[in-house]
Amino acid sequence: MNNKPIGVFDSGLGGLTVVKEISKIMPTERIIYFGDTGRVPYGTRSHDKIIKYALQDMNFLSQFDIKMVIIACGTVSSVALHNIVDAFDLPVVGVVEPASQAAVRATKMKKIGILGTSGTINSGAYERKIKSLDDSIACINIACPMFVPFVENGFLHHSATRLIAEEYLAPLKNNAVDTIILGCTHYPLLKEMIYDIMGADVELIDAGAEAAKFALALLEQNSMLSEDGGNNEYYVSDSVENFGHLGGLFLEQHILNSIKKINIEEY
Amino acid sequence: MNNKPIGVFDSGLGGLTVVKEISKIMPTERIIYFGDTGRVPYGTRSHDKIIKYALQDMNFLSQFDIKMVIIACGTVSSVALHNIVDAFDLPVVGVVEPASQAAVRATKMKKIGILGTSGTINSGAYERKIKSLDDSIACINIACPMFVPFVENGFLHHSATRLIAEEYLAPLKNNAVDTIILGCTHYPLLKEMIYDIMGADVELIDAGAEAAKFALALLEQNSMLSEDGGNNEYYVSDSVENFGHLGGLFLEQHILNSIKKINIEEY
Repeated sequence: MNNKPIGVFDSGLGGLTVVKEISKIMPTERIIYFGDTGRVPYGTRSHDKIIKYALQDMNFLSQFDIKMVIIACGTVSSVALHNIVDAFDLPVVGVVEPASQAAVRATKMKKIGILGTSGTINSGAYERKIKSLDDSIACINIACPMFVPFVENGFLHHSATRLIAEEYLAPLKNNAVDTIILGCTHYPLLKEMIYDIMGADVELIDAGAEAAKFALALLEQNSMLSEDGGNNEYYVSDSVENFGHLGGLFLEQHILNSIKKINIEEY
Repeated sequence: MNNKPIGVFDSGLGGLTVVKEISKIMPTERIIYFGDTGRVPYGTRSHDKIIKYALQDMNFLSQFDIKMVIIACGTVSSVALHNIVDAFDLPVVGVVEPASQAAVRATKMKKIGILGTSGTINSGAYERKIKSLDDSIACINIACPMFVPFVENGFLHHSATRLIAEEYLAPLKNNAVDTIILGCTHYPLLKEMIYDIMGADVELIDAGAEAAKFALALLEQNSMLSEDGGNNEYYVSDSVENFGHLGGLFLEQHILNSIKKINIEEY
């Protein structure tokens, strides 16, 4: 038993999908969340910058007495995981390993599509991990830089989103991919549209949800699950009100009183 | 005569439209440019954050012996102009005043449409300025948060961009607006599409170009034009290579050797 909280961080709001999943499958865990809303997005920045920001995020979270960190951000998991593991003496769970394992288990045709930010796709992290698990699997990598703005501006079911999604997904459709990794925490909000384009029998792997399941297994195996829970705390690097509003809708609960603004540039 | 350089800054790459215009109408001026590519975009952030970032950008630029600053960023011009004017003893030119003056001169029907980022539109800066010049003019404000991602990802002539642009512009079309302020330096790249939707007789006001003209008039009146020119210098807060590549295409010249990366968080 270990009643310390779990740290979760993301470039912004998207990591709340992971918080929601943790609360569902590990309801007695307490979470300290950091969302770098003052510097979001990470996915279009250089690798140097992503690593720098990720280490600052970790410096902030490691001040708390946390038992584990979950990197909810696909870009950080793909680009900066090793930098974090090397610098911090703490169990670290990113989204690449759990999502890759799930995808390898799911694919029957041995063809996996990987959707992510430019940073994630350029890193090649998913393909490397998948090939290390089964090198007979073919991977098709697609950077989808328009998906985050569409989601953040509420164009979830818009015909403009559909036109762009059809272009992004065309190579996956043409290659009869049967499994797709949603490698960014925003993408599950477009699940319905992706099923509609790809067909309902495609397997969509939600990287954030897989990371939460992976964390549960790790905590269980090491007898580190918490017994008493407690209230989650949220920290952001820009407006508390904006995060409270959107995050509250996201989590379907009122979180405004649990959010504090911090100056991440000091870390 | 004053041979000191002009400082220009923007949240990212968009301000290069202003650099291009300055080089065209004031070819002997030397420019020190800062693009905050490590923290772009500004338009969706809180006012507090925009002000903080803008003051850091100014702290950096004011180290150079510059004779004037042009804020090429519509969001900073709308939200943080007064904070900058109060903190720095230097002539400051934003885009709001010049573009508003040009729009008031241009409109025949006394109906002006204002397109900008969420930050710009929420500030109400353009409408206040226009009303102060002629309070019989009606303003229609439209936040266009999808325009920057469309431009940055190269979807300049895509049917998805067209669908969203038609939605954004519908209230301007329905109200028979005859003049539109393009209140963000990215938007001139969508000029062709906007003309196509609105009709070729609509007057589009390029806020960045107007700021450059305004700066020229100010320098002329005060006998502060430069005589010897010199090479521009570019500073960015993320990858030099990315900025060099895109910026070079933008300016139609090779600038990679004139770009340096700085740590804006230190300022």
